Amino acid sequence: MDLSKRIDRAMTNAITQAQGAGDAAPGRLAAALNYAVTPGGARIRPTICLSVARACGDDRPALSDRAATALELIHCASLVHDDLPAFDDADFRRGKPTVHLAFSEPLAVLTGDSLIIAAFDTLAGADDADALRALRLVRLLARHTGMPHGICAGQGWESEAKVDLGAYHRSKTAALFVAATQMGALAAGHEPEPWEELGARIGEAFQVADDLRDALYSEADLGKPAGQDAMHQRPSAVEEYGVQGAIKHLQDILSGAIASIPSCPGEGQLAQLVRLYAERMTPVAPARV
Amino acid sequence: MDLSKRIDRAMTNAITQAQGAGDAAPGRLAAALNYAVTPGGARIRPTICLSVARACGDDRPALSDRAATALELIHCASLVHDDLPAFDDADFRRGKPTVHLAFSEPLAVLTGDSLIIAAFDTLAGADDADALRALRLVRLLARHTGMPHGICAGQGWESEAKVDLGAYHRSKTAALFVAATQMGALAAGHEPEPWEELGARIGEAFQVADDLRDALYSEADLGKPAGQDAMHQRPSAVEEYGVQGAIKHLQDILSGAIASIPSCPGEGQLAQLVRLYAERMTPVAPARV
Repeated sequence: MDLSKRIDRAMTNAITQAQGAGDAAPGRLAAALNYAVTPGGARIRPTICLSVARACGDDRPALSDRAATALELIHCASLVHDDLPAFDDADFRRGKPTVHLAFSEPLAVLTGDSLIIAAFDTLAGADDADALRALRLVRLLARHTGMPHGICAGQGWESEAKVDLGAYHRSKTAALFVAATQMGALAAGHEPEPWEELGARIGEAFQVADDLRDALYSEADLGKPAGQDAMHQRPSAVEEYGVQGAIKHLQDILSGAIASIPSCPGEGQLAQLVRLYAERMTPVAPARV
Repeated sequence: MDLSKRIDRAMTNAITQAQGAGDAAPGRLAAALNYAVTPGGARIRPTICLSVARACGDDRPALSDRAATALELIHCASLVHDDLPAFDDADFRRGKPTVHLAFSEPLAVLTGDSLIIAAFDTLAGADDADALRALRLVRLLARHTGMPHGICAGQGWESEAKVDLGAYHRSKTAALFVAATQMGALAAGHEPEPWEELGARIGEAFQVADDLRDALYSEADLGKPAGQDAMHQRPSAVEEYGVQGAIKHLQDILSGAIASIPSCPGEGQLAQLVRLYAERMTPVAPARV
């Protein structure tokens, strides 16, 4: 089955379970859960996770699907909370009103909380026979999501007067990409540590690409507010290197990512996937009419 | 070791780990994590969890400690998010300013998120030899915390025009008490299902006791705002039965709780604990000067 179909099916299963099909559950919060994860878009993190799992033999596809889904649920949760008035106060996401505008602020907080919990629940639903691998997946997901080094820590740095820029970038964006490569490997029974560098480099590349898009594109192009880094005075690769310098930096990072792929049965295919992302990520300023 | 010492030590370990001792981590968020879980107060849910584990033989005390800690972390997370301006907009908790007032609203959202993740991380830190029990503990915690039946669902009901009162009470308050009894049993290697009723009844008793306190006591007595049920037009046992009726109802629930205790080595001791809670919970309106 093609990866995007696997991801769609697994995401639908997870959301349907969280909505409590048939059982008494609060209907608006149930609707908000689905709203927050659709339309799916590129599903980049779960695609990387499953690609690494496949490169490693994917001997437990159901467990890989759970790992990929857990990652995407966490990613969606982080977007819902980041969009809140207290953070980015964003009006649009995925080309439609953000969850707190479409539902309410309390429901947006609860949607984020529920998606975080659904992520761990998804991993915990693994077969008893896979308990040890699943528990190690829970460890990896928690490490890359919470404090002190996960995406919560990344957001937390934005409340500090003095920012450790390395730690900020590692946790804010790279963490979930490292989780993606490591969890993909672990779900397929490989040790996760050798996969850290690939995830970190892809994550760094996405951060640079995001900085470029934020600087070059308009809100209409992005389907979300543009110019946020400058407005919130956030550190950005464009501010540091300029546009051309940032594009060159992006290409260097992706070359390093390919070079870092650990030896595994599907090494070549994985390198091709990273090359594909590299092409897609390198931004061309859209023509203006 | 006495239960409250075990809980204090395990909570301190969990928070210290989340704060990232020595490593680069955002300092204000790290401080907010500790602020949100102290002073400890009664630590009722972890005490119930460890009491049940002990009644069941407590053959893996380190795992029971993890279960108890995970529950308390989730409870504290729920308080931080419930206190946010979008929900109760509370100024005081544990006799001091709430997290969003003492730190900021973004940090309060992140504190709740980080504590939820720390709860799952704590369970996932179990020894590999206990992986299956630990994974089943993750399942129980997620079920009683998220959607469709956990405490997130309980809060979600407050955004519905038409409330399923039974589902509301089961998820809003009882869920974490059911988690406490079931996780205590499971951590000690017993099947969790027979322990559901005890948790549900203790949870119901706490809800009634809380309704009574909210109606009878002042903000100074409680260390948090009083009269919230009436103000937010929330369903309450006092509104339903009156004060004397609610006290009688509370005593009936606790008798039922004692009768429901499954057969186990420490059955008698556990019954005594519930009787102790019953005495403490039955409110006496404080004398006014």
